[in-house]
Amino acid sequence: MSELFDPILAAGAVRDAVGDAAWLRALLDAEAALALAEADAGVIPREHAERIARVCREESFDAAEIGAKSVGVGNPAAPLVREITARTGGEAARYVHFGATSQDIVDTAAMLLARRALEPLTEDLDACAAHAAELARTHASTVQAGRTLLQQALPVTFGFTAAGWLSGLDAAAARLRSPRLAAQLGGATGTLASLGEQGPAVLTAFSKRLGLPEPDLPWHTERSRIAELAGALGETSGIVDGVSGTIVLLAQTEVAEVHEEAEGAGGSSTMPHKRNPVAAVAARAAARQAPGLVATLLASMAHEHQRAAAAWHAEWRPFTELFRCTGSAVHWLRASLERLVVDPDRMRVNLDATGGALLSERVTTALAPDVGRLAAHDAVAACTRRALTGEADLAELLADDPLVGKHLGLEQIRELLDPARYLGSAMVFVERALTAYEKKET
Amino acid sequence: MSELFDPILAAGAVRDAVGDAAWLRALLDAEAALALAEADAGVIPREHAERIARVCREESFDAAEIGAKSVGVGNPAAPLVREITARTGGEAARYVHFGATSQDIVDTAAMLLARRALEPLTEDLDACAAHAAELARTHASTVQAGRTLLQQALPVTFGFTAAGWLSGLDAAAARLRSPRLAAQLGGATGTLASLGEQGPAVLTAFSKRLGLPEPDLPWHTERSRIAELAGALGETSGIVDGVSGTIVLLAQTEVAEVHEEAEGAGGSSTMPHKRNPVAAVAARAAARQAPGLVATLLASMAHEHQRAAAAWHAEWRPFTELFRCTGSAVHWLRASLERLVVDPDRMRVNLDATGGALLSERVTTALAPDVGRLAAHDAVAACTRRALTGEADLAELLADDPLVGKHLGLEQIRELLDPARYLGSAMVFVERALTAYEKKET
Amino acid sequence: MSELFDPILAAGAVRDAVGDAAWLRALLDAEAALALAEADAGVIPREHAERIARVCREESFDAAEIGAKSVGVGNPAAPLVREITARTGGEAARYVHFGATSQDIVDTAAMLLARRALEPLTEDLDACAAHAAELARTHASTVQAGRTLLQQALPVTFGFTAAGWLSGLDAAAARLRSPRLAAQLGGATGTLASLGEQGPAVLTAFSKRLGLPEPDLPWHTERSRIAELAGALGETSGIVDGVSGTIVLLAQTEVAEVHEEAEGAGGSSTMPHKRNPVAAVAARAAARQAPGLVATLLASMAHEHQRAAAAWHAEWRPFTELFRCTGSAVHWLRASLERLVVDPDRMRVNLDATGGALLSERVTTALAPDVGRLAAHDAVAACTRRALTGEADLAELLADDPLVGKHLGLEQIRELLDPARYLGSAMVFVERALTAYEKKET
Amino acid sequence: MSELFDPILAAGAVRDAVGDAAWLRALLDAEAALALAEADAGVIPREHAERIARVCREESFDAAEIGAKSVGVGNPAAPLVREITARTGGEAARYVHFGATSQDIVDTAAMLLARRALEPLTEDLDACAAHAAELARTHASTVQAGRTLLQQALPVTFGFTAAGWLSGLDAAAARLRSPRLAAQLGGATGTLASLGEQGPAVLTAFSKRLGLPEPDLPWHTERSRIAELAGALGETSGIVDGVSGTIVLLAQTEVAEVHEEAEGAGGSSTMPHKRNPVAAVAARAAARQAPGLVATLLASMAHEHQRAAAAWHAEWRPFTELFRCTGSAVHWLRASLERLVVDPDRMRVNLDATGGALLSERVTTALAPDVGRLAAHDAVAACTRRALTGEADLAELLADDPLVGKHLGLEQIRELLDPARYLGSAMVFVERALTAYEKKET
Repeated sequence: MSELFDPILAAGAVRDAVGDAAWLRALLDAEAALALAEADAGVIPREHAERIARVCREESFDAAEIGAKSVGVGNPAAPLVREITARTGGEAARYVHFGATSQDIVDTAAMLLARRALEPLTEDLDACAAHAAELARTHASTVQAGRTLLQQALPVTFGFTAAGWLSGLDAAAARLRSPRLAAQLGGATGTLASLGEQGPAVLTAFSKRLGLPEPDLPWHTERSRIAELAGALGETSGIVDGVSGTIVLLAQTEVAEVHEEAEGAGGSSTMPHKRNPVAAVAARAAARQAPGLVATLLASMAHEHQRAAAAWHAEWRPFTELFRCTGSAVHWLRASLERLVVDPDRMRVNLDATGGALLSERVTTALAPDVGRLAAHDAVAACTRRALTGEADLAELLADDPLVGKHLGLEQIRELLDPARYLGSAMVFVERALTAYEKKET
Repeated sequence: MSELFDPILAAGAVRDAVGDAAWLRALLDAEAALALAEADAGVIPREHAERIARVCREESFDAAEIGAKSVGVGNPAAPLVREITARTGGEAARYVHFGATSQDIVDTAAMLLARRALEPLTEDLDACAAHAAELARTHASTVQAGRTLLQQALPVTFGFTAAGWLSGLDAAAARLRSPRLAAQLGGATGTLASLGEQGPAVLTAFSKRLGLPEPDLPWHTERSRIAELAGALGETSGIVDGVSGTIVLLAQTEVAEVHEEAEGAGGSSTMPHKRNPVAAVAARAAARQAPGLVATLLASMAHEHQRAAAAWHAEWRPFTELFRCTGSAVHWLRASLERLVVDPDRMRVNLDATGGALLSERVTTALAPDVGRLAAHDAVAACTRRALTGEADLAELLADDPLVGKHLGLEQIRELLDPARYLGSAMVFVERALTAYEKKET
Repeated sequence: MSELFDPILAAGAVRDAVGDAAWLRALLDAEAALALAEADAGVIPREHAERIARVCREESFDAAEIGAKSVGVGNPAAPLVREITARTGGEAARYVHFGATSQDIVDTAAMLLARRALEPLTEDLDACAAHAAELARTHASTVQAGRTLLQQALPVTFGFTAAGWLSGLDAAAARLRSPRLAAQLGGATGTLASLGEQGPAVLTAFSKRLGLPEPDLPWHTERSRIAELAGALGETSGIVDGVSGTIVLLAQTEVAEVHEEAEGAGGSSTMPHKRNPVAAVAARAAARQAPGLVATLLASMAHEHQRAAAAWHAEWRPFTELFRCTGSAVHWLRASLERLVVDPDRMRVNLDATGGALLSERVTTALAPDVGRLAAHDAVAACTRRALTGEADLAELLADDPLVGKHLGLEQIRELLDPARYLGSAMVFVERALTAYEKKET
Repeated sequence: MSELFDPILAAGAVRDAVGDAAWLRALLDAEAALALAEADAGVIPREHAERIARVCREESFDAAEIGAKSVGVGNPAAPLVREITARTGGEAARYVHFGATSQDIVDTAAMLLARRALEPLTEDLDACAAHAAELARTHASTVQAGRTLLQQALPVTFGFTAAGWLSGLDAAAARLRSPRLAAQLGGATGTLASLGEQGPAVLTAFSKRLGLPEPDLPWHTERSRIAELAGALGETSGIVDGVSGTIVLLAQTEVAEVHEEAEGAGGSSTMPHKRNPVAAVAARAAARQAPGLVATLLASMAHEHQRAAAAWHAEWRPFTELFRCTGSAVHWLRASLERLVVDPDRMRVNLDATGGALLSERVTTALAPDVGRLAAHDAVAACTRRALTGEADLAELLADDPLVGKHLGLEQIRELLDPARYLGSAMVFVERALTAYEKKET
């Protein structure tokens, strides 16, 4: 968390949702819920539980102080418990953190944090999807050069391109909407030994109070939930990387089919032609942090015995960072899409720059039944090569060609070369993507 | 795929399920399904489609030859199509690969491959879960030292440890059982332009023939499905890494609570005390390949425009490798669990080695109401330190202590120090894990 | 190693240099050197050593058979030793692998393999550098639009761009030319116990015979050498990714400043405008495998005690794969550079497409002393915006502008807007890069 | 940078050396050096340069404010330049950042930061090496069980184990002591266009003033230096992971050959037997962040054209984080080694626990010439198995065995089974490691 770099690399609301204050709040909420759950189960006196919960609601705990005191024991829950205990005082103090271990609190806090951070994250992601849907709808029939390996190929529509973005954003949002979370409570070695017979009852009440699913058994060394969250965030970043990458390419000076337009961003007073797609660039930079962080979390899944000597501690940073960078990626993609100005005319100009070469194969196909595929191909290819050198318009060259002109008229040739007439199912697919999107929305 | 290293690093049936022959079969199956689907939709003549499908059923295609011819165009589908076309001959040859692009075939084949490779993989994973369930059941009350940060802490049972393994294996299996797959068909730029109005009908028939879900729109540049498979395989490897890591630790000479027993594996004729847990070691080695492979796949999600210039090609190797290593990890864990010999006596010996120190806190707690927490703690801690030096049995030292002995009798102290009486909800949790497992099984 | 995908993903000579046969040869060479070194040190009889070495020179060992037999013990050296022993027979058989452990042989073989595989790899890398140098030299003054964030900015020359490629390729080659290698020999736990006093003498002779540096002590659990090789290969792949990425961008239909030209590669008979930069694409796809593989090797550096239970086994695959993918990346970049056709005219056309806007700042600067910076900027910016809309030539608009025209003549304006006159130190830097390169060559 | 987690995860002096204030200082130092270098080269008036440099020496720049203003342009250098310009005022203000681009300043600052952060990092690393050397020296002949695959194998000495640690720490320190750094200065597209003929002279002066090597040409898109730093830091973390991992294993309750002893750390008042190796655990947790961060930096090496649209921005976070985590890993390993208490008696007890089985092969070897290898092996193995069950002392069982006892006396057998007499070259290797270390020190 850097004040110098975060505005670019950790932008958006997710940053604070996983910041120190949010972690501290989640840790305190877990301790409060534990005390109250133990009162619910009749393990500790209600009044003491309420006293503890009141202390845990205070906002005056100091992350720096807790952090500084954590080095002896190796995690921040232990000094926090000492601080809560000191503030609670009296008889109630004996029941702070009763029967729990540090990992119970940190793991449960991580789950709360995840649930809370997913709210602004999915809000931004939904906004991205809404923008993509709007682009798909508006530009359903805006003809654009389709590009494979960065070479112009058959035409598409920009709405079709945007529908592809929409379907990726939808897929990511669907996964993030149903994370597999759970409360964690097990005590020193997962058996809840000091709760005697009441362990399961406390676990049930604890989960209920936090609104987190109750696990079948403590998951202190079973990290599939962390891995699944990591995977879902990594996927989201990957989707953002793809969409923003295409925006950056479409915004190139030589392509110029879109640009970002925003007060005070990306422009250059001295170079008025220069329009840096700053938001899309920032989105990619954030998104590219994700694969390494996911790998670190997956490589940290091997928690031995009843508590890991490092694999657990190694999760904290990448868990937090992965939320930050994915949140930032989604935030910046939203900004980029909000700023996006689409230039349908330029799309058409770019398509025409290859002088119909994209569609010359259609002429070959139309001609083949009459003159044979090989002769058709040779004649059309020759004209196309001449057109590409700028000699003349392809349609005219074809019409003037003795073989082609004999079988196809200029009008007919122009129709065959018209990209808007060779879009296949582009519009149908746009419709399907929008329908699927709208179904999810409702 | 190395004949020298694969028996260790890519063991099990998944290896062949993603090998060259399997890839070739899947590519051919995709081409066959395409032709038949186009006949279903009335796009091409049925007889030609059947001719093509017959050719695609041949087993005589040569992976090496196809591979060698792929360098000019950059993917193996193109030379395969040329080979199918040549073998088909006649009028039907014109309809081979009709309207499709190489990526349609490779992506669809990848989905078929995934579905097929997941079968042996989940079979091995289910076998692992069954072994873990058996261990949980059999050793539900076999007392074992719980260990945190590799230090003995409160007791657990070995069945409880195994129940934790079971729940992780279950979670991984659940994800692998419902992968998000789909057929891919889009033509050059995803619009299915050359199929005219029939694009969606062909897509439907194509998906149905392959038994793959039909996507809303082509996903040539929307790679969330690949990312989700990667995440699920990475999670599975992580779970295996955890279980096998704990087995290796439990098998240490100084711990010796389990060992692998197998004809011709892991033993040493010259050092009869040495029992290398070869299968668990191989499981970990395979599992640890996964994080880097998942990262490579996630970093390759940014497919620009209508087909990526490298991100697509960059998927093939890690996609295949991730199946191979996860398959091998699961295969070896299964072997390790099959070979696993559990030594309950040694578990008890290890627990007793700390002379009751694990449970001394219980004595403190029992004593506190009478003498105050501080005095109780000091007295018990002093005895524990003496017991750890080997001076005498902790129970006796405590009974002889003037403060402790005044309030607690030897019998009572022995009960407090008995690990079998301080297992909390261990058995309940074992039961819950088994119930959840059995529910999934049925 | 896939016959279907390797021609694209593992192209070039490095593939075989790290293949099964190469591994087997390196393992056998290590065993032969061990026996001979022990004879050199007087530990075993010379004639027996020579008998063993003769057996190890045989080419008839079968990787598949050795691999199949490795599963019991967990590494391929053990069954290979059994096979060598059987073939050696007689008294000499007792001295096969004398005093060594499997890891000694596998680690030493890995070093031999690295040294051998680096030869073709650096040969390809040197060829890439030679091509880049040639491009730098030939196009030292070929004007090209400099691009930042994919937007045209100040002009450069294509030679300057290529000089940047050259310096990266040089840096990678320099690292690969001096890898930190060493023989490994330690016996069961690194002490060379069964060699008695002769351990160090045997180690010296062993290293000398293999032409590998002698380590201060066995490095069975000290993996810095592996990490450094990994880092150097990862860096090389990163450099290739950068150069080939820029080639792919320069080859875009809309930019078209370079293209790959090769018989039977990248072209499309039906779309003559389409020139897929197949080699550059394959180079990137291979290069992108490296980061994940480097991470896997770094994550596997923690070898505990005297031999690791998995971290060692986990190295074999990524070590081999990293060579394969880096070798392929360099091979394909070499091919791309060999095929590269540069279009200086198109470079000029692209520069002119922004109508001098790139250099309008120079006019502002020239004007500022006379009219003040603000007035100068406003006048120039207004003209530039008009020029960008295509209204007229920027130089003429500026000359016609009342404020600008009063102080600067058309000729003077044209000079200010001439990109060839605003190249700064581009040519000097090209010269420096070439000088540095030539110095290294000699 | 989290106040809650950093005391554990980003401990030590490196944290602040790459913190916001350090970044800001480095950026300002780069701007100051630029102005002064331009005065040196006669490009701008000396007095203005000194005015700028004075402003850059001020400590009152606000990272948060600069950061907040960076979002429009996408990097922190631009708003910092605006702030310096405003503070400079007057004629001098025109020369702030003259001829440079943001990336020049950020890249140069990164190099300064690296050089500065490497000081405390290598200081901690040197301290680790000194501790390892001390352990190697002191325990050169302290007998310990050598362990392979976590199974006891032949004996080593603890000094030999520590010598292996020393050689890894030495290798890492050697790489970090000679990083390949360089100043970066190129202007908008690397040509230093606005400096006219003076570009190279300014570059020379700029480098000299910063004490950074002068590059042959600007390296804005040639990131090998970043990759090499990343590799060296990743290697260092890997070495730390290995040493601290072995410490954690040696500190296990059941092994207990070492423990960390520190006031207020790792202990448990209620469980006096529990001594968590907190520092070693924290070292591993930090070290394990490195592979993913190195991968992210390597994956970000592809900087296209003259400035990358994301790959550059994507470097900042992992570059900083990699220093932080490696610094923390080294800091904690130093703490662990400072705290380390070695228990030679326990080492001996653990060795004896296998009742001489480790060395039984020596008896076989001694016996073989008299009775044949097979008979010797069978007799010894039978005794060893009986000894392992605890039936009696192995030496006595062997002496009592009719076959063995006939040829070997009890005394002789005891000598053969004495681990201290079967240490091979352990002590020689310790000596060699210490000699190599001392040579480097001087």
